[in-house]
Amino acid sequence: MPLKDSYLLPAAADMHVHLRNAPGPIASLVTPTIRTAGIDTVFVMPNLAPRPVISVDEAQEYKRALEAIDPKVNYLMSLYLHDSITPDEIRKAKASGIVFGVKAYPKGATTNSQWGVVSFDPFHEVLKAMEEEGIVLNLHGEVPSSAADGVTVMNAEERFLPTLKGLVDKYPKLKIVLEHCTTAKAVEAIRGFGENVVGTITSHHLSLLVDDWSANVHHYCKPSAKSPEDRSALLNAVVTSNGKFFLGTDSAPHDITSKKGKGNTAAGVFTQPHALGYVLFALEEGISRGDVAEDAVTDEALAGFFSTYGRKFYGVPQATQKVLLKRDGETIKESLSGGGVEVVPFRAGEKVWSAEWV
Amino acid sequence: MPLKDSYLLPAAADMHVHLRNAPGPIASLVTPTIRTAGIDTVFVMPNLAPRPVISVDEAQEYKRALEAIDPKVNYLMSLYLHDSITPDEIRKAKASGIVFGVKAYPKGATTNSQWGVVSFDPFHEVLKAMEEEGIVLNLHGEVPSSAADGVTVMNAEERFLPTLKGLVDKYPKLKIVLEHCTTAKAVEAIRGFGENVVGTITSHHLSLLVDDWSANVHHYCKPSAKSPEDRSALLNAVVTSNGKFFLGTDSAPHDITSKKGKGNTAAGVFTQPHALGYVLFALEEGISRGDVAEDAVTDEALAGFFSTYGRKFYGVPQATQKVLLKRDGETIKESLSGGGVEVVPFRAGEKVWSAEWV
Repeated sequence: MPLKDSYLLPAAADMHVHLRNAPGPIASLVTPTIRTAGIDTVFVMPNLAPRPVISVDEAQEYKRALEAIDPKVNYLMSLYLHDSITPDEIRKAKASGIVFGVKAYPKGATTNSQWGVVSFDPFHEVLKAMEEEGIVLNLHGEVPSSAADGVTVMNAEERFLPTLKGLVDKYPKLKIVLEHCTTAKAVEAIRGFGENVVGTITSHHLSLLVDDWSANVHHYCKPSAKSPEDRSALLNAVVTSNGKFFLGTDSAPHDITSKKGKGNTAAGVFTQPHALGYVLFALEEGISRGDVAEDAVTDEALAGFFSTYGRKFYGVPQATQKVLLKRDGETIKESLSGGGVEVVPFRAGEKVWSAEWV
Repeated sequence: MPLKDSYLLPAAADMHVHLRNAPGPIASLVTPTIRTAGIDTVFVMPNLAPRPVISVDEAQEYKRALEAIDPKVNYLMSLYLHDSITPDEIRKAKASGIVFGVKAYPKGATTNSQWGVVSFDPFHEVLKAMEEEGIVLNLHGEVPSSAADGVTVMNAEERFLPTLKGLVDKYPKLKIVLEHCTTAKAVEAIRGFGENVVGTITSHHLSLLVDDWSANVHHYCKPSAKSPEDRSALLNAVVTSNGKFFLGTDSAPHDITSKKGKGNTAAGVFTQPHALGYVLFALEEGISRGDVAEDAVTDEALAGFFSTYGRKFYGVPQATQKVLLKRDGETIKESLSGGGVEVVPFRAGEKVWSAEWV
């Protein structure tokens, strides 16, 4: 087997998680699984409904509610880029010490993006303030689908790259994360920018292709998984990151009725409890396919992608604890249930790597 | 509104339908809707399970079972290209007068394709016999997905086109139908061949894009719907067919549990009861988007695509009856239920054109 049977690594940081409204049944189910995966720090998405997180006070309140569920996790909070956010709120965010980024959703591109951005122009003063204060801009990097412009879920990320380039040029010191990169083109673009522009990569995009989500609603997410070439580029970005790419799972829990009930399928793959194990799975599969060089999966590469690069980028302390990842440690549950909701994890039923705190 | 409010056309022929096992609950539900749509002739797919239709005797038996459900429909039968089919069986098919084509499924590409074709080479004598006898070769024109070869559901049809070209070159008089064309490249390829090589087009691919099936299991089918450019090419193939393209809905009923139950999503869109109305919807939408010229949707083009071209290609008599298609004639049912099964039609709940026999 190309990977070792265990890895002793610094506690991981997952720089893109959806924990949903707290208090709330999904948050109660999902938040306790962060540490199960070997993760002690998470960057929490603000796209709650019916109201996204748009002020520092709301982020503070949300953080406290999450701490009430699991106080041992370090929650890095975010705001939702929205008309009501002012440069003063950005300065307040910096001063708060708890808000690290502002997430921009293209209007209509994904879950709860109905309050999202059409153009970045109206946010000029806010973006200037973020650049000055070192508050990160987190981008859902897709343009909305448009038949007139030939945009579908398959090229929506590639079509966003000129917008990213425009932001980088206009705000050269702004810290930017292109969230959940899914294409070789996005990986290439991120590599071409300075160290203030990075990408997160999910665990599920390291194994899924368009075929996998076509017939399986639990594999459907935005941005959608794409081609073998794209997947290969993502896998190689993980092991040759050099700080340009780090883990952001975009773990997106949905109640089973949003996946299998009447009506359209909610976008999102739930990966929180086994976030690191999925990455190891995918790297091992990548090696067997020949997508990834066998000697590329070093302890250093894993420690960087899982933990050190993300913390450094966000300016938070490096991990003090370690986790021991062990092959075939446990079987992924068919679903997590409680409080009237049921969430199906990625690769349910498979044997997965376990994480032990040491 | 760019289309007229009614069209008086020859009874339609749907040259690609799935009626499932007969007798059987889905066949009982679906077969009576053929004439509801204004269709009197159908080319019936042989991919039954657990056993496909692989002999003339089985096709005869299947035909009788369908006639027991609705004797007023003319069922053109097909065989499933399979190791057990011999040149003699092809000659028997021709002599029977009831079997018109042999359907080739690439192994693993779609519903019940587990007995399908890996290479056409072993079928040389069968294909020669088909060429001699005028038995049609019906192609599910996709190569199986393969990460190693970079094949996904998005390019599987395009990657099949060299195989089609090879068959056309090797069997220059063989009548070939590339079923359910979904790409501009397939349309272009068909246009480039002689009149013995044609394509069918479904009604749902005239309106769906990849985005539409990504979040809606009732829109998921094989081959999958693709880009706006591809859809535009299909719409224009309908109105400028000149006999190269005709209707084959690939109406594929699945019980709701195969779409929304546990496990993977079955591929197929159920369009039988409103097959012609969906095409008119799509043409009208295509005109409003500017994909289709307003004056292109003539009575002649519709009569050709719906009825005359397909009958001519298969060598069956032209229609003697007429149907009157009328705008906003009825509301599409949320589902059809009976015998313990439930099938959800395409665009459920929308007002659709109705078909009256005149």
